[in-house]
Amino acid sequence: MHFGSDNQPGASARVLDMLVAANLGHTHGYGDDEWTARAEAALAEVFEREVEVFLVPTGTAANTLALACLVRPWQAILCHDQAHILVDESTGVELQSGGARPVGISGGAGKLTPELLASHLARAGSDATHNVLPGALSLSEVSELGLVYSPQELTGLADLAHRHGLKVHVDGARFANAVAASGASAADLSWRAGVDVMSLGATKNGCLAAEAIVFFTKGLAHELPFRRKRAGHLLSKGRLLGAQLVGWLQEGHWLDLARHANSQAALLARELTTLPGVRLAWPCEANEVFVIAPTALAAALRAAGATFYDWYRGALPPGVELGEHELLLRLVTSFASSDAHRDELLAAARAFFHRRHG
Amino acid sequence: MHFGSDNQPGASARVLDMLVAANLGHTHGYGDDEWTARAEAALAEVFEREVEVFLVPTGTAANTLALACLVRPWQAILCHDQAHILVDESTGVELQSGGARPVGISGGAGKLTPELLASHLARAGSDATHNVLPGALSLSEVSELGLVYSPQELTGLADLAHRHGLKVHVDGARFANAVAASGASAADLSWRAGVDVMSLGATKNGCLAAEAIVFFTKGLAHELPFRRKRAGHLLSKGRLLGAQLVGWLQEGHWLDLARHANSQAALLARELTTLPGVRLAWPCEANEVFVIAPTALAAALRAAGATFYDWYRGALPPGVELGEHELLLRLVTSFASSDAHRDELLAAARAFFHRRHG
Amino acid sequence: MHFGSDNQPGASARVLDMLVAANLGHTHGYGDDEWTARAEAALAEVFEREVEVFLVPTGTAANTLALACLVRPWQAILCHDQAHILVDESTGVELQSGGARPVGISGGAGKLTPELLASHLARAGSDATHNVLPGALSLSEVSELGLVYSPQELTGLADLAHRHGLKVHVDGARFANAVAASGASAADLSWRAGVDVMSLGATKNGCLAAEAIVFFTKGLAHELPFRRKRAGHLLSKGRLLGAQLVGWLQEGHWLDLARHANSQAALLARELTTLPGVRLAWPCEANEVFVIAPTALAAALRAAGATFYDWYRGALPPGVELGEHELLLRLVTSFASSDAHRDELLAAARAFFHRRHG
Amino acid sequence: MHFGSDNQPGASARVLDMLVAANLGHTHGYGDDEWTARAEAALAEVFEREVEVFLVPTGTAANTLALACLVRPWQAILCHDQAHILVDESTGVELQSGGARPVGISGGAGKLTPELLASHLARAGSDATHNVLPGALSLSEVSELGLVYSPQELTGLADLAHRHGLKVHVDGARFANAVAASGASAADLSWRAGVDVMSLGATKNGCLAAEAIVFFTKGLAHELPFRRKRAGHLLSKGRLLGAQLVGWLQEGHWLDLARHANSQAALLARELTTLPGVRLAWPCEANEVFVIAPTALAAALRAAGATFYDWYRGALPPGVELGEHELLLRLVTSFASSDAHRDELLAAARAFFHRRHG
Repeated sequence: MHFGSDNQPGASARVLDMLVAANLGHTHGYGDDEWTARAEAALAEVFEREVEVFLVPTGTAANTLALACLVRPWQAILCHDQAHILVDESTGVELQSGGARPVGISGGAGKLTPELLASHLARAGSDATHNVLPGALSLSEVSELGLVYSPQELTGLADLAHRHGLKVHVDGARFANAVAASGASAADLSWRAGVDVMSLGATKNGCLAAEAIVFFTKGLAHELPFRRKRAGHLLSKGRLLGAQLVGWLQEGHWLDLARHANSQAALLARELTTLPGVRLAWPCEANEVFVIAPTALAAALRAAGATFYDWYRGALPPGVELGEHELLLRLVTSFASSDAHRDELLAAARAFFHRRHG
Repeated sequence: MHFGSDNQPGASARVLDMLVAANLGHTHGYGDDEWTARAEAALAEVFEREVEVFLVPTGTAANTLALACLVRPWQAILCHDQAHILVDESTGVELQSGGARPVGISGGAGKLTPELLASHLARAGSDATHNVLPGALSLSEVSELGLVYSPQELTGLADLAHRHGLKVHVDGARFANAVAASGASAADLSWRAGVDVMSLGATKNGCLAAEAIVFFTKGLAHELPFRRKRAGHLLSKGRLLGAQLVGWLQEGHWLDLARHANSQAALLARELTTLPGVRLAWPCEANEVFVIAPTALAAALRAAGATFYDWYRGALPPGVELGEHELLLRLVTSFASSDAHRDELLAAARAFFHRRHG
Repeated sequence: MHFGSDNQPGASARVLDMLVAANLGHTHGYGDDEWTARAEAALAEVFEREVEVFLVPTGTAANTLALACLVRPWQAILCHDQAHILVDESTGVELQSGGARPVGISGGAGKLTPELLASHLARAGSDATHNVLPGALSLSEVSELGLVYSPQELTGLADLAHRHGLKVHVDGARFANAVAASGASAADLSWRAGVDVMSLGATKNGCLAAEAIVFFTKGLAHELPFRRKRAGHLLSKGRLLGAQLVGWLQEGHWLDLARHANSQAALLARELTTLPGVRLAWPCEANEVFVIAPTALAAALRAAGATFYDWYRGALPPGVELGEHELLLRLVTSFASSDAHRDELLAAARAFFHRRHG
Repeated sequence: MHFGSDNQPGASARVLDMLVAANLGHTHGYGDDEWTARAEAALAEVFEREVEVFLVPTGTAANTLALACLVRPWQAILCHDQAHILVDESTGVELQSGGARPVGISGGAGKLTPELLASHLARAGSDATHNVLPGALSLSEVSELGLVYSPQELTGLADLAHRHGLKVHVDGARFANAVAASGASAADLSWRAGVDVMSLGATKNGCLAAEAIVFFTKGLAHELPFRRKRAGHLLSKGRLLGAQLVGWLQEGHWLDLARHANSQAALLARELTTLPGVRLAWPCEANEVFVIAPTALAAALRAAGATFYDWYRGALPPGVELGEHELLLRLVTSFASSDAHRDELLAAARAFFHRRHG
């Protein structure tokens, strides 16, 4: 019963097969190989336009290297106060950017809004050398709390950001889940909405370690090759990354995987909330279920073999506090989540309440 | 009518005289001179104990170099959300520390409290490599909003910080004003309260450019000489810094200067708040007056020749918002503030209301 | 005819099989998985002692993260003037260490010696804050010019380094080739000779992307987990790295692969030097052949489909200069080098001279 | 008998007087004051053109901040292998630039030449992401070994640098001495020769702490204000720097001071070399005397009260080695060097030989 993270399974069979296929023969090193080229072509097709692509092995590498190209070391990167780049990637942004500062914006209902952004900008200082002025906005799609920005929401944020001179980055660690959930196209959820650069994550959704930094806006990528190399993120055997992405993107495989994960999460959310004392902290729109649940239930599920994380109290909706015997839990489904595991979890939960109230 | 900042006058006559006296003759370079040694001795006397002292020319240098010795590049430095190190020193902390992160704590009444600190710590993540765990607490004495921490308040914060493994730094840009205002000794407001290292500012209170990084806790200072040198803050003619501090500290001169500034601010606060529509945003405890005032009044005062700053809206007390025709203003007095200037400002303010309502 | 680099083939069949085997099932994330644990155990066995191991995807990551744990940002890392960390890894050392400086030592016969090191130390400044004093020595085994340090040579260098307070790092990108060539054990060529930490490379010798930072000396590794995470080198699906290393180390597979590469290089060197105007720049001791050859020959070989690199003129032996129509070439063999390719290259070379002189 | 460094006296009387005069009254902070403006105007006059000027308190600040504007963190800065930025400013370049690398060029006769530069460029790698390609050339005028580049020499170097895409920086810590010695104008020795930016030092030649970063080439300075602020080098009381420079530049005072220092050095060099076993390591062209002298003589002079430094053996001319009982010494004169001290030193030296041989 694995609901800890979508990084706990391996690769999908198709992705693994492509990796095995790619292993044969000699290629040029350092990304100058046919698999990398094929991945780039596949990304251009998915996004319905020319793009500049740089492959790296981790999401932290993708986010921090991309952002380092958007800001100078004396600027800020605005993001949600639960953003992965702020909370879960150590001081990676600072390292790669030479000291730029990620700044979290609080409040709101699980997503940033133009109003929140405008309010932040109005309260911040504007003295260019003394204050740390923002140079970029980083959004997460799927959001930090499992919600999906619509194309309209992204457009509203990107427009405001651009009017203030900010570049727009999307942390797309679960972008596949967002595309699958929203019904909008990858293009609609990125460059058509004004996104300048995206970290497109494949690792959490069927690959072993493969992320693509995708630049949509011309003129922003010129530093990336240098930053990737000095950070140690230029793989000599580029086929490892290229082949995974080729397999992942081929014939809509990436979206098939995401749809499965999303539907598992939706079912889980629906069933869990039928239990007494269990309520969603946030609507389940993609493949993450944030629930507030009795501490004893969490213990019982873990005793039954389920894995999942207690989550940051800072991730609770504004105004919501945990009761004394409650926890905020995050359960994540993946392409590899099985009906059996889901049913086993739900059965264990129901058994807990039977024992307790029976 | 200079109320823009306490960095707008020059040096006090005594400090300048000492600088002139120190100019004669040859000395060793790079801080290995008698004036630096005398400054160190004077600081030991002021703080009533042995201290490790490093002189630098600016407050930003003092704060950022001191903090860089307290944390590693993957740690956070907790501070008030209006702290100078967070808001007004660009990304100096990130530069000197190699990427550590200053994190502002919001809320409260112009000062941090153990409750605010505890609440922040409880909501933050604790996964040592993924999350950015705090390594230090930085307080400002005088506080960011012109308030003075008592020895008891400092002790409460430092104790809690130490229990969580944090080192405690004080940004003492206006420490002289705090000592003068509180009646407590320099020792009571620093190491006796648990402070590990202080940036003691003299520039704003009678010097031209002289700040002392004062380490109270053994074992924290060993990196400082290297950090100061590579940052370009080791002056070859150390007497420039040493002589200023000698003159400043001699015979309580520093506190005389601070007392004058404080009393000018108190009078200003008292008189300004007798005017219609003018109210203090924060109590005036040292040499800064934070007032909410009509926009038209601010314009009239500036037209009459007064200088002062509109201040960050983020510096308003929680729950207080500006009216449509109001501004938050900061007026600062200094050792050089004259009765004449103060009276001229007040006269201009009264004249404004006469014209308006007359 | 692929002699460009040992990073141009894919993974060996055994390594790939292990990767496929590891793909099944769920594991914990971020290196807390059984495959990583098995790799650690395999390394302990190979080195005949307890070690602290950190897996990363690239050699640049391994070198720069390891070195960042050995020095402070105001120190130097001494290395050969053709060292990969100095010449081929951009400013990766500076990035990860926060600004420490790699310093090349020139002269000598393709390897550093205690004499060269002593001479460098004697000529350098010793003023600890002004000068950039060395904190570490980094050696490459196999050396930058394809030579193998004996255990005695390593011991001599490490002893001198330790006497001067320097930590000793080995860039073992081709350590397997060194072990295979020297007949000494992995332990003899590392910690028994005084090496404190090694970057053990598997990528160039049969893996796709897998490097192990191996700490032998206690107390040096505590920063590594933080540095690896913030640099984006902590893979969420740790099995990718762990499984490769398990397959690579199992049953001496890594040394079998290296022996093959070495023997191919030896044959190539022997045959090439029978050709007119072709001479070795350096003895061929592992899997790299540095030859000085006529420009026209290089062109002819490339026209026949061979790949290899022109090499830095700075890599010529002291006193050796290229003739007007000569190039320094580097040919590298790998586990995947075939007799057929080697023979094809030699045939093309002989054909060139036939045409020319026939 | 102070010959340790030209940073051992205080300020000249005229400079000090100007500082005292500037102390009166209130000014705007952070360099937006009339004294800074007057210094800028004086520099424009000295250099006979419009310039962009940024004042900082130390030479290390000036050099490292200026260079950080010329290169990206993955580039190299070429300089003489005895350059102050390489040898004596810790890893300041790395800090301010975010990890760019200063690279020393060896050989030559105390100055860089186009030939040395060309040879270095030819031997270095050119693979833009892997190798560390140069982005700037930094020259010292006066040179590291006390020599003066002529306008023609500077032009030759700057032309070659520009043809290779390098920006040209001059470390002018002793630029006044160079101008005084060469008879060429400040303009001839800087922008007319192709220099893009200079660190103009006043501290060593009559000020207490005042250096000017002077940009000649448009478009290079835009990052400087941000870099200066975050590094803590933006003084709040800008008059401290401005006034010193105004006094220093007024009526050619800076050149009068430098001429005095130069002539004292010339006399010292002439007389010292009449002594047995004493020879110049480098011609004395400005205010530094590099002599090779008997160890016993150095001890005798120090016993007599003279101060001066043993110098780096790396600063010896190529091919010159010290005898067993010899040292390389550096004696520096300044604006404050007196005939009396010089004669006292020479008398002590002569007495030493009398005692020894008498």
